[in-house]
Amino acid sequence: MAARSPFLTDLGLAIRHRREDQRLSQEELGLQTGIHRNYIGGIERGERNPSIAKIDVLAQALDIRPSELLARAGH
Amino acid sequence: MAARSPFLTDLGLAIRHRREDQRLSQEELGLQTGIHRNYIGGIERGERNPSIAKIDVLAQALDIRPSELLARAGH
Repeated sequence: MAARSPFLTDLGLAIRHRREDQRLSQEELGLQTGIHRNYIGGIERGERNPSIAKIDVLAQALDIRPSELLARAGH
Repeated sequence: MAARSPFLTDLGLAIRHRREDQRLSQEELGLQTGIHRNYIGGIERGERNPSIAKIDVLAQALDIRPSELLARAGH
């Protein structure tokens, strides 16, 4: 488990907000991406430090550009 | 070594272009970030799939927001 950082916390919240806006559960997002829902939960809490390719996969499933996801996170 | 993907290739090129714009060598960027220059070379060639936190560290050293780096990569 990666140490929490402001950056990862902000990104995780942006992912959570986008997922909720899209009316997706962690489980549904997990099924769409092949990423386990528990890992998605860890990302959303800023506890995980996913690869940039995984962020791209999540962004695609959330119908948002990775750059926009990071911009919404304030980074 | 991660498989090359269009996404990683685009991101690597955006990092390389920004580094060159900033007149930094891979070695100088490596010293600033604590990331080995060989690994930076691999990222720039799209051969590596770095963590999102590592992208943030590189973006900071390149004086650019991670969201802007991804936008320049076309993602």
